[in-house]
Amino acid sequence: MDIQEYMKMLGRQAKIAGRVMSKADTGQKNRALLKIAEALENSQVHLIRENAKDVQAGRDCGLDAALVDRLELNEDRIHAMIEGLKQVAALPDPVGEISALSYRPSGIQVGQMRVPLGVIGIVYESRPNVTVDAAALCLKSGNACILRGGSEAIHSNQAIAACITQGLDWAGLPTTAVQVVETTDRAAVGELVTLSGFVDVIVPRGGKGLIARITQEATLPVIKHLDGICHVYIDTEADVDKAVAIADNAKTHRYGVCNAMETLLVADGIAARVLPRLASIYREKGVELRGCLKTCSLLPQCRRASEEDWRTEYLAPVLSVRIVANIDEAIAHINEYGSSHTEAIVTENYTLARRFLREVDSSSVMVNASTRFADGFEYGLGAEIGISTDKLHARGPVGLNGLTTLKYIVLGDGHIRQ
Amino acid sequence: MDIQEYMKMLGRQAKIAGRVMSKADTGQKNRALLKIAEALENSQVHLIRENAKDVQAGRDCGLDAALVDRLELNEDRIHAMIEGLKQVAALPDPVGEISALSYRPSGIQVGQMRVPLGVIGIVYESRPNVTVDAAALCLKSGNACILRGGSEAIHSNQAIAACITQGLDWAGLPTTAVQVVETTDRAAVGELVTLSGFVDVIVPRGGKGLIARITQEATLPVIKHLDGICHVYIDTEADVDKAVAIADNAKTHRYGVCNAMETLLVADGIAARVLPRLASIYREKGVELRGCLKTCSLLPQCRRASEEDWRTEYLAPVLSVRIVANIDEAIAHINEYGSSHTEAIVTENYTLARRFLREVDSSSVMVNASTRFADGFEYGLGAEIGISTDKLHARGPVGLNGLTTLKYIVLGDGHIRQ
Repeated sequence: MDIQEYMKMLGRQAKIAGRVMSKADTGQKNRALLKIAEALENSQVHLIRENAKDVQAGRDCGLDAALVDRLELNEDRIHAMIEGLKQVAALPDPVGEISALSYRPSGIQVGQMRVPLGVIGIVYESRPNVTVDAAALCLKSGNACILRGGSEAIHSNQAIAACITQGLDWAGLPTTAVQVVETTDRAAVGELVTLSGFVDVIVPRGGKGLIARITQEATLPVIKHLDGICHVYIDTEADVDKAVAIADNAKTHRYGVCNAMETLLVADGIAARVLPRLASIYREKGVELRGCLKTCSLLPQCRRASEEDWRTEYLAPVLSVRIVANIDEAIAHINEYGSSHTEAIVTENYTLARRFLREVDSSSVMVNASTRFADGFEYGLGAEIGISTDKLHARGPVGLNGLTTLKYIVLGDGHIRQ
Repeated sequence: MDIQEYMKMLGRQAKIAGRVMSKADTGQKNRALLKIAEALENSQVHLIRENAKDVQAGRDCGLDAALVDRLELNEDRIHAMIEGLKQVAALPDPVGEISALSYRPSGIQVGQMRVPLGVIGIVYESRPNVTVDAAALCLKSGNACILRGGSEAIHSNQAIAACITQGLDWAGLPTTAVQVVETTDRAAVGELVTLSGFVDVIVPRGGKGLIARITQEATLPVIKHLDGICHVYIDTEADVDKAVAIADNAKTHRYGVCNAMETLLVADGIAARVLPRLASIYREKGVELRGCLKTCSLLPQCRRASEEDWRTEYLAPVLSVRIVANIDEAIAHINEYGSSHTEAIVTENYTLARRFLREVDSSSVMVNASTRFADGFEYGLGAEIGISTDKLHARGPVGLNGLTTLKYIVLGDGHIRQ
């Protein structure tokens, strides 16, 4: 079978399985999740052995150490996957929820019911845990899915896929509800993202390169995550202690994450009180500062930021700092250079807080909180499949609801249109 | 200026205007809508004169009579546009609405705020009223828009555009918030649907040909309407009077609309009681019937339906009829041949009604009501920009909410991530 036929077969099977999944009841879906957890538990030795083949192959072909680390499975990581499954099982089932059901003047009752999207295609890099996470979220939200992980993780993913199949089977659900692509051929991705008629949406998870390629090739809708160039704006009326704590946390809590602050904007009227304190914290933690002219005159150890700096997602201990006149300049900077991911203002001023919330066009907008909170778990979604920087369908952290849609339901008693 | 530069200019202007519109307050937006209504009222003579040029040109080049009729403006139609503006002004403003704001264990408050999408591109055929309707919905939902109507309506649309500009200006809003493309060059559409970075979503309004072309060319997200192959399923336990009333209304209330029934499915156990009654109504109203073998043996005047019939949106006084064993066969038929637009069951059986609502994967699913109710006004949306047959973002009738998105808002008091 050639790759096109193979992917079409997966698509056809997924579509059929998706119909069964859409009407599977909550108890059955939860049983499947717990059975997959059980299968992973029972297969630990096998999983680690299969994973070792991938790790060895990765090392042999000179895979970057950080990537090898992400690829590696150990008891702790398998345990985390098992915990993840249990957490998803414990989440409320979004499917079938009816909202806003109300009577219309014609006498009909109109409402909306939350229903699965159908078939979800997920393309990701060589992190075996994504195989379990993604499968769990798709399963709980009543969708079928086709998973295409990085080729470096092929043995690990196949071993995990076997556990998923076992769990689905034990719970009496179609084993084709979760299909892990069995080939490492790159062409499979191209086929998957154009499987129109079978796949309803593509969710790429990974670095910019992956996402750019998928967006380019896909003819299906894509829920995607682009850059996270997050800003914190410290207003003149900020509480200095809160400002320092938030700007420290937003930058240094973790560096390589999309919700880390990349640019700090400080109002002119407070810069002298807040920047030296922050600079000494950053110096201690090894964060390099790149500032505007004013910032550099205030902080002599700071080097000048280039135009390019304002547009850069460092994902590293580097921070660009700009002193602005006021909230208008801050919002103008964010509009010009931001990526509409997450922005925060630090202020005690009610009117400015309200303006910032309304006027900043990002997937998360915060007042007096660290950008690091932009996360599905922190928001109470229970789990997330990613953070969408798109505006349509799902914006910000995407949980179970993001994998569903709303259909209208109409209840009548023989009603006809006049 | 070439067409590409011209469309880019419109895009740039729309993006800037969109930012102003997103923070315009409700009163100001309503004032603009009412001022546009006033301008239309004052310009009736001019509008009808400009429209006459289009109508004459249409007739001269042999435009179809139905299309000439759609193109024509008269006092009644101008009055309807004015009423439409007043209705949209009276609708609640969706922008800024905050939902589900609640405290998380970390102490932050998380909720979602409804915000405009930004810039909406609308491509439509030669119906001048769409220019006003679309502008009104985009304006009220805080978006800027670029409108590209059919070239046959160019004089009418330019005259309407002048009224819109006047209304925006009187209300102190940017006149570039609604831009009507001034050229009849087809290339403008190709440019519009690829204006990435300026336009957030494309909404095509029109026939299948238009929508297919837009979907093909667009690199931007499209909210689209495809076929409306709507089904009514009359179950064995249907109330015969309700079944007859609904099947009559769904087919004959209006023929050329997307929510008209195109295929009637009847349970074997009730066919003999319901089909002859319906057949005599349809015969009287001049509806041609095309049936399955069983239907034809019950209704001798019925001709055989071909495989193609089940897949056809007639938009005409033609109906295909199939006798099925039960709800499972009905749902299987809908899954195989339907277009996921609107489906209705007629039954008094609680369990089957509940199953149909859950298992039928269409944008509207109804019990004991005519498919003709699938409409933004009937659903209480106030107005609609179209009916989406897509699953992502907006499904079914799209009103003001469909032109908005939700961003997360986080309120803290100096909270940092642990």
